[in-house]
This record gives sequence, structure tokens and C-alpha cells, in this order.
Amino acid sequence: MIQFKNIPALLILDVQQGFDDPYWGERNNPEAEHNISRLLDVWRRLGWQVIYSQHLSLQPQSPLYYKHAAGIEFKKRIAPLAGESVFTKNVNSAFIGTSLEVYLNEKNIQTLVITGLATQHCVSTTTRMSKNLGFNNYLVWDASAAFEITDHRKVRFSPEAVHEAEMAALHNEFATITYTEDILQAALSDGQA
Amino acid sequence: MIQFKNIPALLILDVQQGFDDPYWGERNNPEAEHNISRLLDVWRRLGWQVIYSQHLSLQPQSPLYYKHAAGIEFKKRIAPLAGESVFTKNVNSAFIGTSLEVYLNEKNIQTLVITGLATQHCVSTTTRMSKNLGFNNYLVWDASAAFEITDHRKVRFSPEAVHEAEMAALHNEFATITYTEDILQAALSDGQA
Repeated sequence: MIQFKNIPALLILDVQQGFDDPYWGERNNPEAEHNISRLLDVWRRLGWQVIYSQHLSLQPQSPLYYKHAAGIEFKKRIAPLAGESVFTKNVNSAFIGTSLEVYLNEKNIQTLVITGLATQHCVSTTTRMSKNLGFNNYLVWDASAAFEITDHRKVRFSPEAVHEAEMAALHNEFATITYTEDILQAALSDGQA
Repeated sequence: MIQFKNIPALLILDVQQGFDDPYWGERNNPEAEHNISRLLDVWRRLGWQVIYSQHLSLQPQSPLYYKHAAGIEFKKRIAPLAGESVFTKNVNSAFIGTSLEVYLNEKNIQTLVITGLATQHCVSTTTRMSKNLGFNNYLVWDASAAFEITDHRKVRFSPEAVHEAEMAALHNEFATITYTEDILQAALSDGQA
């Protein structure tokens, strides 16, 4: 049973419409967006901090290219409300080229519940930097998702294999790997206390 | 055939004696240190920049704990010479808590050849940040190595599987994945030009 030492912010990384494009290939965890929306509902109800990143790619071939008005939009069920914090970025890490670190320190946020897309790129990179900058991370297995990869040798890795291997690399060293149900239970138990 | 656009620095991450401790479990690429020393010889001969990171862990159980005089020493064949740059660090990324980024910019170094230990932790995290900070990375498959991992579900990943999956995650997005022979050939061809 998870017990938060202090109130965690919910970090929602790059849950944007451009990720529905076939460009990215096969994906795992189709339920990730539903789980993020369940976490989001509880965070809003408790009045806890919700923080979004929005990727504005500088690569014209990317469905998240900054000029693709439709691609860069948030998915509908997970769109920010007025007053929620959005950090736009051009690279994988939500900490590079943004004021996210300053913001977390100003708000005295020490713990993050991390969700979003895609496990092996923006989620992993942001989680690694977050830990190395001194924050305490819960990374939610079923509220994030990976895409298939073909490596430099033309070997294909399924999205499930990518997700599992990256979570294994992050486990303990950078984050506590958790599940939506466990985070919901901890948040609701904290929120009622 | 690789052609460097500008003179690359050789980055050697955490090649320290503490990594020979059984604490880390099974490892792949036993030839990595030999390959790094071959790259190092050529870089020194050409008078190109060599940059080391040295991990000083804050975890008392780690063989790289900062008070373990033997564990934190560099492996003998890859020890820095006087005048070569060493950045000590306490976290995975060689860019956090160090002046590495400032140093690279001051020396006008835009391209890095990245080697060292371990693929899934310090090598991956440093490579990711390097790319996101604007540097151009060549990551050397057979001059780096991974250790086995047991994930949060108690599923074991062999060191080969860890290495392959992490290299796949880094490929294209964060680095060009290369081999020692290709880098040596490119360096020697550049150095003679």
C-alpha cells in the first residue's frame, strides 16, 4: 500500500491528438488515457496540483509538429482546465527549455505521479531527470504507453516489450513503478485523512 | 561510413573499479573496456578532447559509494591523464550538478562519442539529456555495457536484453548507434585529412 509522504502533483506528459497518427506504429496500453482521466478526476476533486506538458515538435514530419494545429491539441478527456499548469516543450524532457523545475520548487512539490506518452522517449527522459533533480517519482504502468521500435539493426521491438524493458530500467533507480488502482487508493485515503 | 561534421569529444562515463563488484549482477559486453581504451588511444594521438565522468554515489550500499576509495577509482587502462577533464557527479546524468554543459559550450564541442557504464542508467540518462540540450551523439554499442535487471514484478531481464532494448529506445531519437570500428575509422580518416 502506497503512502505519500507529501501531496503529489499529477504530471501528464504529451497526451496529444497527434499520438493517434499511424506514424508512430503499434501501441500498448490502450486504456492509458482512461486511467489518466480517472487520476485527473480524483486530483481535481482533492484540489491537488495537475501539471501538463505539451510537445511542440520542431520536426516537420512529426504529427506533433508545432504548426499542426490538430496534432498538438490535447486529447479531449484529458484537456487542461483554466488555472491548471501547462508547460510547452520542444524536446523529450519536460525539464529542458521550461520552468518546470522552478515551478515545482516554488510550489514545494517534492513528489510526482507521472503518466503519459510515450514510455521510452518523453516519459522515460522526464522521469530520469526528475529523479536526478531530486524529486520523488511514482510512474504509473497502466497510465502510460509505448510505441513499437525498429532499432539500428532493423530488429523490431513490440510496444509491450519496449514498455516492459523501459519500466525495468526505471524501476528503483528513478521511480517506484505503480498502477492506477494503487495510486487512486493512496490518493483517496490521503484526501480523506 | 560515419563522417563527423566537427571534431567530437570522447565521453567516458563511470568506468570505475566498483563496477567489477558482484553487487551489479551479470553484465554483457566484456570487451567494452578494451574498446574504450582503443578509442582513447586514438583520441589522445589526435589531440582530441577526452572527457570522463566519475560517479560518487550517495548510497552507502553502492560499490560506487563516495567513501569507497577503491570502488570509485577509474579502471587502470582507462584512467585520466593530467590535463584531461573529469566531472564528478552524484546522480546518473553527467549534466546534473556538474559544469559539463558549460564546458562543452565554452570549448565549442557540438558532437559527442559516448561510451561507458551502465547502458540503462548513467549512459542512457546522459545521452538523453545531451541530445535534449542540443548536442549530437554517437553512442558506441560495443564500448558500453548493461547489467541484468529484476523489475518490480520480479521478472528478470538479461544484460543483453537490457542493452538491446535501451539502445533501441535511444536509436535516432537521442543518438546514432555505432560500433568501435566505425568510430575508429571515422576518427582516423578525419585526423589524417
